[in-house]
Amino acid sequence: MQLAYNLAQKGCGGVNPNPLVGAVIVKNDRIIGEGYHEIYGGPHAEVNAFRSAKESVEGATIYVTLEPCSHYGKTPPCAQAIVDNKIARVVIGMLDPNPLVSGRGVKLLQEHGIDVESDFLSAELSQMNRVFLKFIQCKKPYVVMKTAMTLDGKIASRTGDSRWVSNEQSRARVHELRNELIGIMVGVDTVIADDPILTTRLAGNKKGRNPIRIVVDTQARIPLDSKILNTANDAKTFVAVTSAAKQNKLDEINALGNEVLIIKEKDGRVDLNQLMQVLGEKGIDGILLEGGATLNYAALEAQIIDEVHAYIAPKIIGGKDAKTPVGGEGIQVMKDAVNLQNIRFENIADDILIIGDVVY
Amino acid sequence: MQLAYNLAQKGCGGVNPNPLVGAVIVKNDRIIGEGYHEIYGGPHAEVNAFRSAKESVEGATIYVTLEPCSHYGKTPPCAQAIVDNKIARVVIGMLDPNPLVSGRGVKLLQEHGIDVESDFLSAELSQMNRVFLKFIQCKKPYVVMKTAMTLDGKIASRTGDSRWVSNEQSRARVHELRNELIGIMVGVDTVIADDPILTTRLAGNKKGRNPIRIVVDTQARIPLDSKILNTANDAKTFVAVTSAAKQNKLDEINALGNEVLIIKEKDGRVDLNQLMQVLGEKGIDGILLEGGATLNYAALEAQIIDEVHAYIAPKIIGGKDAKTPVGGEGIQVMKDAVNLQNIRFENIADDILIIGDVVY
Repeated sequence: MQLAYNLAQKGCGGVNPNPLVGAVIVKNDRIIGEGYHEIYGGPHAEVNAFRSAKESVEGATIYVTLEPCSHYGKTPPCAQAIVDNKIARVVIGMLDPNPLVSGRGVKLLQEHGIDVESDFLSAELSQMNRVFLKFIQCKKPYVVMKTAMTLDGKIASRTGDSRWVSNEQSRARVHELRNELIGIMVGVDTVIADDPILTTRLAGNKKGRNPIRIVVDTQARIPLDSKILNTANDAKTFVAVTSAAKQNKLDEINALGNEVLIIKEKDGRVDLNQLMQVLGEKGIDGILLEGGATLNYAALEAQIIDEVHAYIAPKIIGGKDAKTPVGGEGIQVMKDAVNLQNIRFENIADDILIIGDVVY
Repeated sequence: MQLAYNLAQKGCGGVNPNPLVGAVIVKNDRIIGEGYHEIYGGPHAEVNAFRSAKESVEGATIYVTLEPCSHYGKTPPCAQAIVDNKIARVVIGMLDPNPLVSGRGVKLLQEHGIDVESDFLSAELSQMNRVFLKFIQCKKPYVVMKTAMTLDGKIASRTGDSRWVSNEQSRARVHELRNELIGIMVGVDTVIADDPILTTRLAGNKKGRNPIRIVVDTQARIPLDSKILNTANDAKTFVAVTSAAKQNKLDEINALGNEVLIIKEKDGRVDLNQLMQVLGEKGIDGILLEGGATLNYAALEAQIIDEVHAYIAPKIIGGKDAKTPVGGEGIQVMKDAVNLQNIRFENIADDILIIGDVVY
């Protein structure tokens, strides 16, 4: 199962909004087939494992990280393929929470007299597929808020300079996350201040997948000459506005090959919960939020953030007016702070990355 | 030498401004004596080791973490005691940087035909004695700035609530530091806002040494009914003011059993460099700076901080007006940030403590 888990991870960045799945076929104590879900719409892990086998799989055991599907989606049901290949025993990592599958895959296998065991490494597998799990259950994207601050809590100096807070290796780590999550979201003020392109640059010139860009921009203040609006060939861009935005500006944004999303207003701004729903309907299963202080606080208030990645660099900049990772009005008393759980630490040279899941 | 190092650490909190020293006597491959410098003005480690020996130390080897002294201070010279006890060989951890000693202890021993070896574990010993080393060389206290912030860089909520940012174990760790460093420094705004007593509370009701309290208070705004001014029996308090303070207020502060230090002014505030010099003359070898944002930035600008202890708690509070660990005017561009080196990380339950040495 550990090998199947490792195989599954190879699909990272390619299969959204499908889950990462790996499969290993074992016969007479030898591995005779391996496969993983490589790309969205492509064959599932089980099918790839069958194809890789150089000998008959009849009577073999298949280890698969996720319950085999029993329905026709982009591909035929894998449970049926397992039956057809005369597999004797199926060991499942975790059951599929997808209501179209859950339990039915197991049932179909058992009805054909196949021995089924399940629930191995399920905690690790849930963690690996956390984006898929939220999406399949809530129809909304899993949101990771990424921040980078100095040891005294600043995301930029008092003059707004932010190059660079974290070290080169930390910034490379963020590009891996851009490759992993299908969407990236910023506020319009970040676009105005930094004019970022928000594409993925992986180490060693490895080609990454550029994330779909989402700009939260209530009044459509985004500059028409910004890089993000003029690189539709690199990646799609959604500009989320409210009815407060002028139609002619929206037409110009669309004309550059971008898509405007008109979202209802809440407290004079884009309602982030409705935005998440709309993005979910468009198949965006995960978002990296690289917001400024204001958008980050709005996202926290709207309770759309699932996970936080906070990079901290061992340097001090000072400045009572320098910005911090999360601004806005703020919570009144410390005991009402938003807590994180399942805390993980990663040392990245002298920087530290703190990862945690948000508890609302 | 490792055993001698461990013994030396037992003196922590008791010997300032003297160094931590441990000694072990070995004869015929057996440890026959052990000692450490237990308390300021008390017998040195070597003497304690001799006293502990139940048999003759003639011809033995003594392992001592610091070069034995050769001068009369609070106690007679240890190098002479080693000669008198007919020790055959001396293994020294690090040479003494004290100009009254350096090299002379070794010389005296060698002149009496004793075999001397040195420089074992010297990096670890320098680290253990960093407070002593700065003090003996600069005549100024070693300053540790301690901060505690949320994962979004706040030391308190927008309303000023700071109970609590870090967890219970982290706060206990700070009390160990209060026991280790002889002085503790805060700004008057902290006294006005929180009315702290700044004594030491160690785990398990172990009695700690209360640090000498230093309040930076340019205009003597400290409330006369503050706890810090009315607990002279628990610990001494210095109130550092400038000539801007009114004499009658200073008389009242003195009358409560505290000591006013009139320090020259710099940019309308207490000149922190002169304050360090005055405190050094009074034998304060180490200070824990538990300042607010303004004092911390002033201390950073004055370059008096040697080491930073930054506690980070996995919670988010938000608030563009909430305070951060270091305020003031701030540095203009990120590349001019004050960097830390020799970074150490300590996990304290879900909090993380980042320790580093300041590079100016």
